[in-house]
Amino acid sequence: MKFLIIGGDAAGMSAASRAKRNAPDMDVTVLEATSDVSYSACGMPYNIADAGVPIEDLVVRQAQVFREKQGIDLKTGHKALSVDRESKVVTGKRMDGTDFGIPYDRLLIATGARPIMPELPGFDLEGVMALKSLADGRRIKSFIRSADVRKAVIIGMGYIALEMSEALRARGIEVSMVKPRPMFLPWMNQDMARVVKKEVEDNQVEMHPGEEIVRIERNGGTLNVICTQNKLKADMVLVAVGVRPSNELAVGSGLELGPSGAISVDRALRTTDHDIYSAGDCADAYHVVTGEKTWVPLALRANRAGWAAADNVTGRDVELQGVAGTAVFKVFDLQVARTGLSMKEAGEFGFDPVEVMIKGRSRAHAHPMNTSLYVQMIGDGKSGRLLGAQLLGREGAAHRVNAPAVALHQQMTVERFSQCDLAYAPPFSPTWDPMLTAANQLLKKLG
Amino acid sequence: MKFLIIGGDAAGMSAASRAKRNAPDMDVTVLEATSDVSYSACGMPYNIADAGVPIEDLVVRQAQVFREKQGIDLKTGHKALSVDRESKVVTGKRMDGTDFGIPYDRLLIATGARPIMPELPGFDLEGVMALKSLADGRRIKSFIRSADVRKAVIIGMGYIALEMSEALRARGIEVSMVKPRPMFLPWMNQDMARVVKKEVEDNQVEMHPGEEIVRIERNGGTLNVICTQNKLKADMVLVAVGVRPSNELAVGSGLELGPSGAISVDRALRTTDHDIYSAGDCADAYHVVTGEKTWVPLALRANRAGWAAADNVTGRDVELQGVAGTAVFKVFDLQVARTGLSMKEAGEFGFDPVEVMIKGRSRAHAHPMNTSLYVQMIGDGKSGRLLGAQLLGREGAAHRVNAPAVALHQQMTVERFSQCDLAYAPPFSPTWDPMLTAANQLLKKLG
Repeated sequence: MKFLIIGGDAAGMSAASRAKRNAPDMDVTVLEATSDVSYSACGMPYNIADAGVPIEDLVVRQAQVFREKQGIDLKTGHKALSVDRESKVVTGKRMDGTDFGIPYDRLLIATGARPIMPELPGFDLEGVMALKSLADGRRIKSFIRSADVRKAVIIGMGYIALEMSEALRARGIEVSMVKPRPMFLPWMNQDMARVVKKEVEDNQVEMHPGEEIVRIERNGGTLNVICTQNKLKADMVLVAVGVRPSNELAVGSGLELGPSGAISVDRALRTTDHDIYSAGDCADAYHVVTGEKTWVPLALRANRAGWAAADNVTGRDVELQGVAGTAVFKVFDLQVARTGLSMKEAGEFGFDPVEVMIKGRSRAHAHPMNTSLYVQMIGDGKSGRLLGAQLLGREGAAHRVNAPAVALHQQMTVERFSQCDLAYAPPFSPTWDPMLTAANQLLKKLG
Repeated sequence: MKFLIIGGDAAGMSAASRAKRNAPDMDVTVLEATSDVSYSACGMPYNIADAGVPIEDLVVRQAQVFREKQGIDLKTGHKALSVDRESKVVTGKRMDGTDFGIPYDRLLIATGARPIMPELPGFDLEGVMALKSLADGRRIKSFIRSADVRKAVIIGMGYIALEMSEALRARGIEVSMVKPRPMFLPWMNQDMARVVKKEVEDNQVEMHPGEEIVRIERNGGTLNVICTQNKLKADMVLVAVGVRPSNELAVGSGLELGPSGAISVDRALRTTDHDIYSAGDCADAYHVVTGEKTWVPLALRANRAGWAAADNVTGRDVELQGVAGTAVFKVFDLQVARTGLSMKEAGEFGFDPVEVMIKGRSRAHAHPMNTSLYVQMIGDGKSGRLLGAQLLGREGAAHRVNAPAVALHQQMTVERFSQCDLAYAPPFSPTWDPMLTAANQLLKKLG
């Protein structure tokens, strides 16, 4: 049995390793277009924040370990260009320009996602960069040094943009952020979003929401980001307006697509072709709250889906529950976490969403170093089900979100969640954890 | 309707406030033996750690607020001594020595728990103290100052003993700890218990487990704790060997008792007398894992049970799910958390417990300030159910435990828990949260 994997990042390498562990004699080949495999992409902002460490610190496992220790035929510099489903052959081009064609019995498409680059003048100028691959990180880090970057503009205000604002400030770089839509963190309770915005501004980041970007120009050593109202000057421009699934191979071979153009897979990670699986940021997933398809390109799902695809290819029978949409990021001293649906999503999926937002405390009454902890919680007016939660604070927000995440997997009602025996000690929470206080208040509103 | 409450701490005052909120016209009377009500008992070690703050900082709500703002007839200095269930009258003694007799329609016994004092010579000497009530905290704080305490012996090594070891070290006091049983934190995975013990010892606390205490003697200004092998000198001795339910009123009036002599209550907090409820550290509870009765005297349950009792007294129909045995404490820089059953408990309740313990990391690969995070997880070999979890680390252990706690409320299998969409960002965890890694490894052992 020949198991061919396209893509050597989280999902692809997880699948390759798992397949060899499950079935040591299986012929496992990985095609990776770049020369980097198995690195912590999410760690790049923190690595960039520190001029003193090489980007290679983020490499989790070297290519030769996969090849020599694990017996995986890892072919870097191999860009897959098409899948012939009839003859079961993947063809493509090597870095040196030569062609290749490799047959498969089972194929895994793990091509990931790539940054959206607006089709506007000047986004191809030197110093205008996105952050997705390790090569991007390497390029940004080296550009900061070689161009002696003092001022940066970040286009976008999502979590990667925000993590990068912190990273660049840590390097002493002046930062401005700009995005076309006026709403900051539109999925978030807007009282909480304002707290995040203030934190960013308190760290000397200039925020320009609601500014359409027209083009980028180079004027001598300076880049000018021309917006409808402002002209923002920078030595470097970081484009972080989101990602899209790298679905070309699936489109080219007629596989079905799901939300946002991600490759449609069932709970066993199978595409609409019985012998082709897909996992990672290029593939969709079921949402445990809605039961419907969703696209949440995050690292844990990529790893888990890679494993599950390999389990199925090697003859185990594995189905994944789906995702709850749990995500967390840090921006300066704030932890921002969410799980489940936002108010808008809950409405779109036919729920009758009811929301509370409370400002609680991170520690017990009279305990030193107490800080604010914000909790938003959404329940369904019809069924009483918990639909989502958001947390925000200087401590304890990140790990707390896992409790409502588990509750969402179990389709718990707000009432049942409100009765959970959560941990209490004065350094870690009030007697009633703010999540329970939010649940109690939400119960009253649900009536 | 006359609602009489015995005990003005967490459960009693929660019940009183809730009853008046639900039914503003109800006649609500609280009998409290001391003069302190509504304070954060759990906060006392942290308050004692700081000489500069008064113990009264821990008072959450003043007695006159309950009386004047909330209309509760709060009688401090009223010690209830007996309940006549026939005539429905509680009799007792006031602080001034006079007797009282108060009738009730519904009664709530919320007398809490009190420290176990070994019946050995010298435990009544000045400078030998326990910590439970605010008066105890006041006495300890004032004794440290007046007797210029430089050296303390703590008898016991449970979580209050450990919190107090940290508090006394913060005051610059030399601390020795001693207990008869040789096993440190016997409910804990012993590899993890050793990490806790080392942390305590690294903070210059002398540990003497496995030493029987014979008596305490006073020799001039010094107390000598005489053990079978050692004689420990101290200016102050803190006795922290556990608590027992204050069940005398229930025993005296023939109510049924549950585990550890706690007052037996149903899910509606009713005792075996239809008109008498019990809540707080004196009452038992159902365990969500075993479905059996248990006694877990902790603050959240006390507050929640007080509310629920008041809800039922005021005509709402409320049942509590029970407790998962979730608990957390901090000792020096370590967070120690548990939920569900220990290996020993799981065996005693007829499960076929299988355990894993992993040493994971608190942050992602290559992220700065990464520390160890230990996770123990127990599953049932027969059903695959998750039975319990323990966490230990310098960050992220306390709030993480809430996720398995929710899972226990839902009687989830390890397999389902292992599929949960938990939060990931490099500052907060590896891609696979250590809880998921533990669950994955436990799954393999469960086969």
